[in-house]
Amino acid sequence: MHTMQHLFHETLQDVYYAEKQLVKTLKKLSKTATAPELQTAFADHMAETETHVERLETVFELIGEKPRAKKCPAIIGIIEEGDEVAAEAEDPAVRDVGIIAAAQAAEHYEIARYGTLCEWAKTLGYTEAKEILGQTLEEEKNADMLLTQIAEGGVNQAGERVAA
Amino acid sequence: MHTMQHLFHETLQDVYYAEKQLVKTLKKLSKTATAPELQTAFADHMAETETHVERLETVFELIGEKPRAKKCPAIIGIIEEGDEVAAEAEDPAVRDVGIIAAAQAAEHYEIARYGTLCEWAKTLGYTEAKEILGQTLEEEKNADMLLTQIAEGGVNQAGERVAA
Repeated sequence: MHTMQHLFHETLQDVYYAEKQLVKTLKKLSKTATAPELQTAFADHMAETETHVERLETVFELIGEKPRAKKCPAIIGIIEEGDEVAAEAEDPAVRDVGIIAAAQAAEHYEIARYGTLCEWAKTLGYTEAKEILGQTLEEEKNADMLLTQIAEGGVNQAGERVAA
Repeated sequence: MHTMQHLFHETLQDVYYAEKQLVKTLKKLSKTATAPELQTAFADHMAETETHVERLETVFELIGEKPRAKKCPAIIGIIEEGDEVAAEAEDPAVRDVGIIAAAQAAEHYEIARYGTLCEWAKTLGYTEAKEILGQTLEEEKNADMLLTQIAEGGVNQAGERVAA
């Protein structure tokens, strides 16, 4: 019988896969980005994401499971859309605008998943896991807000000035 | 040359596809759900989602384009994961817990996309489009919060009581 413990474990495997993919994606984005503040934001968040991977490994350990990634079609789709937007935009200023949007879709996927995992950890009495997952949730929210600030702080305006 | 107007138009097509898929998914979820408050929440949000589709059609019109959906791999992945969780959970109480999580992943995808579209509409001077998209953004945020309330209001506890 499938229990809530199974749901928790499977979602953990899903997010573990997503985070590992995002380490690679963020590394790529930090090089694709043109605006210096965007390059820095992606590089910083890549380092944070490496920590998120380690934290998930701790949570696996806390529930007595081996860290294992489960293919996550959602993040694959999100990354695919980001690759497409980066490839289509010839102008670097427009590309910056597009990749911010793609990265924010990824952030929101993680916000949803970590939000769920935190709720479930609470229900299941996984107190330490809840605290660890909550730290990452806050960092994902902050990463999303920072990208909005960067977009509004000049990147969108620069993109808008590019004519056809 | 790809401009920000192109990005806006393509993302509109992406969300148009996503919303149309979600109308079908929410209809299915309102029947799959067991908790009455969850059935109602999905049914209500399905009706809202139909309005979101119409609003997007208005925005297409405002920018002088025909409404057209562009296949969105992200939402396909999110829906696929939701179908999987619903199929795996034999117990209705556990299934309710799982489908809330899946629906919240979809909501967050939309929050990200509408957030981006609102920002871009502002930059591009699409004042009316921005207002219309902002209405939907608020409704997606409310739908997400309502699902959290329902999960915390008893659905997660009921799921937790199901033994292996």
